[in-house]
Amino acid sequence: MLTPDRISLNTATVREQWSLAECIEGCQRHGLGGISPWRDKLQEMGVTKAAQAIRAAGLTVTGLCRGGWYTAEGRLTPAVKDDNRRAVDEAAEIGADCLVMVVGGLADGSRDLPGARAVVEDGLADTLDYARGQGVKVAIEPLHPMYAADRACVNTMGQALDICDRLGEGIGVACDVYHVWWDPDLKAQMRRAGPDRLMAYHICDWLVPTRDFLTDRGMMGDGVIDLPLLAGWAAEAGFEGLHEVEIFSAEDWWRRDPDEVLATIVERAANVC
Amino acid sequence: MLTPDRISLNTATVREQWSLAECIEGCQRHGLGGISPWRDKLQEMGVTKAAQAIRAAGLTVTGLCRGGWYTAEGRLTPAVKDDNRRAVDEAAEIGADCLVMVVGGLADGSRDLPGARAVVEDGLADTLDYARGQGVKVAIEPLHPMYAADRACVNTMGQALDICDRLGEGIGVACDVYHVWWDPDLKAQMRRAGPDRLMAYHICDWLVPTRDFLTDRGMMGDGVIDLPLLAGWAAEAGFEGLHEVEIFSAEDWWRRDPDEVLATIVERAANVC
Repeated sequence: MLTPDRISLNTATVREQWSLAECIEGCQRHGLGGISPWRDKLQEMGVTKAAQAIRAAGLTVTGLCRGGWYTAEGRLTPAVKDDNRRAVDEAAEIGADCLVMVVGGLADGSRDLPGARAVVEDGLADTLDYARGQGVKVAIEPLHPMYAADRACVNTMGQALDICDRLGEGIGVACDVYHVWWDPDLKAQMRRAGPDRLMAYHICDWLVPTRDFLTDRGMMGDGVIDLPLLAGWAAEAGFEGLHEVEIFSAEDWWRRDPDEVLATIVERAANVC
Repeated sequence: MLTPDRISLNTATVREQWSLAECIEGCQRHGLGGISPWRDKLQEMGVTKAAQAIRAAGLTVTGLCRGGWYTAEGRLTPAVKDDNRRAVDEAAEIGADCLVMVVGGLADGSRDLPGARAVVEDGLADTLDYARGQGVKVAIEPLHPMYAADRACVNTMGQALDICDRLGEGIGVACDVYHVWWDPDLKAQMRRAGPDRLMAYHICDWLVPTRDFLTDRGMMGDGVIDLPLLAGWAAEAGFEGLHEVEIFSAEDWWRRDPDEVLATIVERAANVC
């Protein structure tokens, strides 16, 4: 039962319809408390101009999506490191609560999952070192195991927190219910993360059936995730931030009037979250 | 590098092409060491007749697929319990190494995942009690987390072994690489299972991209799973059984000449497993 000021809009939710400027205006119009831009939309608007507009609108920036993809070139290259440092700079400029990391999966043609995980940890260490200097927090987003090969080889909260334990201060997790709702260890791992390391909390729903691996996420209430239960666990773990709505939905929500999408988010936040 | 006598054919791999009788003959013709029938094919042939034919062919029965679906009626009903007891009887009659359990997901209209897991554990306890009397081993198959809602709410080896720890003797796990290859804890959980509880080992491959949630599994070598690495872990854990090939493939292997499918299995077993 969330009021609109407890909700943040991840721009992916209306990425087919709105520019970042339109997202900012939409958040204001619907009374949302925050926004989380993707880098493509941020760069399109211009980082400085976007930062000013977000501040003027009084929106909390719950995250910047996204850094990571450390395995994109098979090994940790200067280009990959540099791109992540630019992401840190952008996160700093817009005052994002954290830089969300989708870490990358197996390199092309590789079957070496332990190797990919080692590359990812080296990459995170490099980005974290730079991010500490810029005052930016780094949030690993564990992705659903169905993305282990092609998007992210960090697949559970426990695995992400093990990395955080090894890397130290300034790094935590972005917990997206879509990726972790199935995990029997979820409650315990939220508690283990605690308020300092539970840096972002993303919501949507898991549809049954799910028709596409990437772009068939559901609006809250349309699927099977017990959102109030999980929100309770996050609160017990000390999370007090906004709930960020991130819905990839090629056949449904990306085709609707974006004001209808935001109105629906506000209604569902009040009634099913 | 497996010789054909180390391979078992799960009948799902050629389910669109062959009856169980044809599967048994096919295994003999290609020199495979074992077979694992599904119940529909077993009942179609007749359990007694099938048991005789499998014995006459000298095939090991690496499992019977499948019991479970404890949540099918929302709660644990006598009908669900009885069906699982019949599955135990069938497993006993064909001399199966284990009865493989796909435990069921959320009941229709439910979001109560902890509740579903409790129903499943009660159901497993009931089946196990009966199976002990019949000398049948029960193997929980953890399914990939992408099936948590609609097929099985036991989703990791660790979760399955926690259940085994609570239920005691006679119950273990069926480890299918398709479901668990992504798990950072897999090696440790195989070791934890050990030879007594690692009751079955299923192989295929994870394709990139995967185009269907259920029926787009790959032939060994066509995907990204490091099969020799995982086979090594299973061997280190004490597993000495056959590797059972189970491939759901509506658009590819189910459309091919089944003798070509088995010949390919034999070739891949020798070269990529």
